[in-house]
Amino acid sequence: MVQRYVRVQTREGQIYYGLLQLNRQVQVLDAPPWLQGQPTDLELDAEQYKILAPCAPSKIVAVGKNYPNHAAEMGGEVPEEPLLFLKPSTSAIAAGVEIRYPAQSTRVDYEGELALVIGERCSDCTPEQAQNKIWGYTIANDVTARDLQAKDGQWTRAKGFDTFCPLGPWIVREVSPGALLQTFLNDSDRPLQSASIDQMVFAPDFLVSYISKVMMLLPGDVVLTGTPAGIGPMQIGDRVRIEIEGIGYLENSVVARTPVPPA
Amino acid sequence: MVQRYVRVQTREGQIYYGLLQLNRQVQVLDAPPWLQGQPTDLELDAEQYKILAPCAPSKIVAVGKNYPNHAAEMGGEVPEEPLLFLKPSTSAIAAGVEIRYPAQSTRVDYEGELALVIGERCSDCTPEQAQNKIWGYTIANDVTARDLQAKDGQWTRAKGFDTFCPLGPWIVREVSPGALLQTFLNDSDRPLQSASIDQMVFAPDFLVSYISKVMMLLPGDVVLTGTPAGIGPMQIGDRVRIEIEGIGYLENSVVARTPVPPA
Repeated sequence: MVQRYVRVQTREGQIYYGLLQLNRQVQVLDAPPWLQGQPTDLELDAEQYKILAPCAPSKIVAVGKNYPNHAAEMGGEVPEEPLLFLKPSTSAIAAGVEIRYPAQSTRVDYEGELALVIGERCSDCTPEQAQNKIWGYTIANDVTARDLQAKDGQWTRAKGFDTFCPLGPWIVREVSPGALLQTFLNDSDRPLQSASIDQMVFAPDFLVSYISKVMMLLPGDVVLTGTPAGIGPMQIGDRVRIEIEGIGYLENSVVARTPVPPA
Repeated sequence: MVQRYVRVQTREGQIYYGLLQLNRQVQVLDAPPWLQGQPTDLELDAEQYKILAPCAPSKIVAVGKNYPNHAAEMGGEVPEEPLLFLKPSTSAIAAGVEIRYPAQSTRVDYEGELALVIGERCSDCTPEQAQNKIWGYTIANDVTARDLQAKDGQWTRAKGFDTFCPLGPWIVREVSPGALLQTFLNDSDRPLQSASIDQMVFAPDFLVSYISKVMMLLPGDVVLTGTPAGIGPMQIGDRVRIEIEGIGYLENSVVARTPVPPA
């Protein structure tokens, strides 16, 4: 069994990084694992914690049109260079947390993606150096208000709503280059997206190198590597599940957005 | 004299929020002022600190084409709704820190802007509520690689390079609605940009409300309110100064980007 690195919160509000065991116990680490966190004596039983997004990124950098068949379905070509955009850190949510469908949109889509978690400060790196800055891999849903994406031109609003970046449920250190990425809605076993991650135009090491020549990446930052063909809408009440072979699955339900209570 | 709120770092690396005195001493606060930081007994002399960007935003949300004369010079119209984009927090630098001109661009522009500093968590706010979430005001330079902005379509790379968001030098609690914003290059006293901030299409309270209906704003987050007409290029060796009446001026020089030393 591969090691699964999680971030959890106890009922008292304490946040820990940890290792998830097969019995759902979490062995708590004394720091994020990419900052050399070591196991402590503290173990949490399944009912003692809730799972959070597996890291707390200072930024989420994403890449558009990085699978040829998705670029084609969007009516475009693969760009000559990676096409970067940002999702706000406030958009990140954990597996199992509800995606909140905003009133401004009538077309909110799933986009299943492989996510990279950065382990070390990364600035002006070569692809070889960048490979060593990728600490691990997780699953992301780059939720997108498709109508607002077209209307605004800039993708920030369409992709930046609170809850529009489900991440997790955990991080693994390795992923097979040919791993299958699949997206499912509700109880259907017919995948809406299905692609091997090696169909990416720009590979993870190249992406991280490219980004690092623009903006410094920090430990815990996240890079979303693009979505394959098969994107489509979710409705309120739907449940969306993204699976990546060798990692696991990320599942979230969709509810209507209502104001959050005051802090 | 209005109160000027700063963020400083001592030679030992300690970071403090504080009040800047007329003699350049800083009276240290025990927390960020928007989190009810109170004055301590610690005072720093001018040679004991360097000034940082006046807050450490978890995100920097910016607005395009928010002055009619700038929208016109870009060959476009004022949008019907605010046009949002994000700058990464790694782009923020203090007054006096060098803007690093990247090799990927041959056209790097200044854009002088009024910046809002958020004091309280802000989600789904009305404009009236939003006004109370704006803790203060500072000056920003929304540095933009104009050639990459056109090439990419998405503005993230063009506006996201390290050092592309000079902020500061300090925060004030109030700014006059008719305050003049001006931008100067080098020793010229001819302003390249000159506009009253009340020429904005969407006012600060409306912008913060609009953003809060998309993404939650957190204490210390920054909103850039757009630039007036007169944008133009900077060259390596130039010094750019942005003034806002009643706040002060933000000055930065431009150097060639070279790799930063390893951490």
